[in-house]
Amino acid sequence: MSGALLSLLQTELPLIQAPMAGSQGSRLALAVGAAGALGSLPAAMLSADALEAELRRLQAAGAPYNVNFFCHTPPEPDPVRDAAWRTRLSHRFDAEFGTDLRSAPSAAGRVPFSAEAAELLAAYKPPVVSFHFGLPAPALLDRVKAWGAVVMSSATTVAEARWLQARGADVVIAQGLEAGGHRGHFLDTDLTLQMGLMALLPQVVDAVQVPVVAAGGIGDARGVRAAMALGAAGVQVGTAYLLCPEADTSAVHRRALGSEAAVHTALTNVFSGRPARGVVNRVMREMGPLADDAPRFPLATSALAPLRTEAEARDSGDFSPLWSGQAVGLSRPMPAAELTRALAEGLR
Amino acid sequence: MSGALLSLLQTELPLIQAPMAGSQGSRLALAVGAAGALGSLPAAMLSADALEAELRRLQAAGAPYNVNFFCHTPPEPDPVRDAAWRTRLSHRFDAEFGTDLRSAPSAAGRVPFSAEAAELLAAYKPPVVSFHFGLPAPALLDRVKAWGAVVMSSATTVAEARWLQARGADVVIAQGLEAGGHRGHFLDTDLTLQMGLMALLPQVVDAVQVPVVAAGGIGDARGVRAAMALGAAGVQVGTAYLLCPEADTSAVHRRALGSEAAVHTALTNVFSGRPARGVVNRVMREMGPLADDAPRFPLATSALAPLRTEAEARDSGDFSPLWSGQAVGLSRPMPAAELTRALAEGLR
Repeated sequence: MSGALLSLLQTELPLIQAPMAGSQGSRLALAVGAAGALGSLPAAMLSADALEAELRRLQAAGAPYNVNFFCHTPPEPDPVRDAAWRTRLSHRFDAEFGTDLRSAPSAAGRVPFSAEAAELLAAYKPPVVSFHFGLPAPALLDRVKAWGAVVMSSATTVAEARWLQARGADVVIAQGLEAGGHRGHFLDTDLTLQMGLMALLPQVVDAVQVPVVAAGGIGDARGVRAAMALGAAGVQVGTAYLLCPEADTSAVHRRALGSEAAVHTALTNVFSGRPARGVVNRVMREMGPLADDAPRFPLATSALAPLRTEAEARDSGDFSPLWSGQAVGLSRPMPAAELTRALAEGLR
Repeated sequence: MSGALLSLLQTELPLIQAPMAGSQGSRLALAVGAAGALGSLPAAMLSADALEAELRRLQAAGAPYNVNFFCHTPPEPDPVRDAAWRTRLSHRFDAEFGTDLRSAPSAAGRVPFSAEAAELLAAYKPPVVSFHFGLPAPALLDRVKAWGAVVMSSATTVAEARWLQARGADVVIAQGLEAGGHRGHFLDTDLTLQMGLMALLPQVVDAVQVPVVAAGGIGDARGVRAAMALGAAGVQVGTAYLLCPEADTSAVHRRALGSEAAVHTALTNVFSGRPARGVVNRVMREMGPLADDAPRFPLATSALAPLRTEAEARDSGDFSPLWSGQAVGLSRPMPAAELTRALAEGLR
């Protein structure tokens, strides 16, 4: 299946650097692309202008690249739920940090893929477009496919993999529960439906005909080799790339990933409203890690923002999302090209 | 590392049939042993007489075998907690099933490894003894080691693997979150500390010097190959063996494992008081799957017993523990020797 994947991606290696919104941009993607793998640009947190500037850089380099979007349905605003959550945060943390969390401004946060984004992309025709949380509506997806883009999306269950294939995904990314950052689930919110990669991957490979890329808990060449043995056509790696100098990983995040604390990650919804895996920190322990009353994705983001800013100014990552997969213990800081070559050893 | 494991186990293949208390005895272990892998006898639910009879059968066959014990610390009886749980069960189910769950007899349930068991074992000198939930007290462990038994135990975290090696385990079983049945965790009850096998296995391999056996989510030769690529010295498989004719898997359990429902497993404590993975059924949905108020392990078992009996008499598995790993979808019923050979393909 690697052959089929390589002819879709047009890369030398069946390796993909996972898009990690907020922690990297074209700099990392370009370094990965230059090393023969597929670099990814996360677009979920970029303004149109910023996205266009990044696309220009990626296009200029000439290597294939991937642009990633979220495609969630934004929730109805829920002022009562939002106020209750902010009050809880406020009572707990305002005195200590001098914040006024009840009156923190509400920002739009992450926006889903839109007609405007599709129009912008059409001018650059990125060779690969990937989505998280399902796929955009058929008409919007058709616009992406119109310029020949290869479409990828993540499945956390066999049912999601089948759904994605039936609706036009060219590549399915099987995302194991080990993965860092946001779960890609979209058919059901029950986290017990999701599987570890060892169990998920071969079942997805058996269920669909499109190439399957393995993601989650892969940190070195051994993981790449294992994923290929399970039937993957390729491998997507995220967390290990966060340690590269070309990533824009914040200082508190980078430090957490290299610390003993990183052995303990958990799924939490306190940062965004949707379950995502990060190194366990104070706000996860005190408010979650999974809080029934957190605002719905992506509305939870703004409530914590002042606290995060204040804590980071004190050099603390206690209120920052420290996204990480379960295999961060396998990773060491190194340039992206070196990491890519090290992972590629698992393909031989 | 396979060489070191094989010289410890004295088997032809570095494959272990996982001990599955309540679902198999010497019949399965003997069939696996005859096929060149290590068969296991779960002793946690056997009386001394039954254990002795099984040991006699295993010893007579002449192949190496493993006897498995739990080594939890039995909890203090907690009549208040127990009564509250029974009352909740009673209100919910008594009318429908004609049971009187508040007055169900309390049985001892699973007993931990003891001096009596060690004495019994000493007469048979089983070549391999494995433990779940840590290791017995040093003096008791020394008795097992005195006849030259190889000692194995399960680790769900890197810290548990290090602990087991430091206290004399000859082999560490890295149990991924995908595994069916009881989690082997013993240093901490926080389930978020546990990892998927893809992330756990290489980190355990890097952390200890003893051979590491991979367990959890491995259902076919691909999983075996992947585990070996991650650095395992061998592989332990449970769920797939539950489908073999030589297993004593109950009718409702066998049917659940072969059904569409088996795609959804979850960790639950409603059956025993300790988290174990099984196919999601009615009692897990309605009382858990993880209930804060369940009696402590193993005391939860007796409260459900009348309901389980009544439901099974109606050919329903709604109240039975339907232990299963996440990879059951990869398994088909076949004789244990055939399954062993199929798994061994992943070693080539």
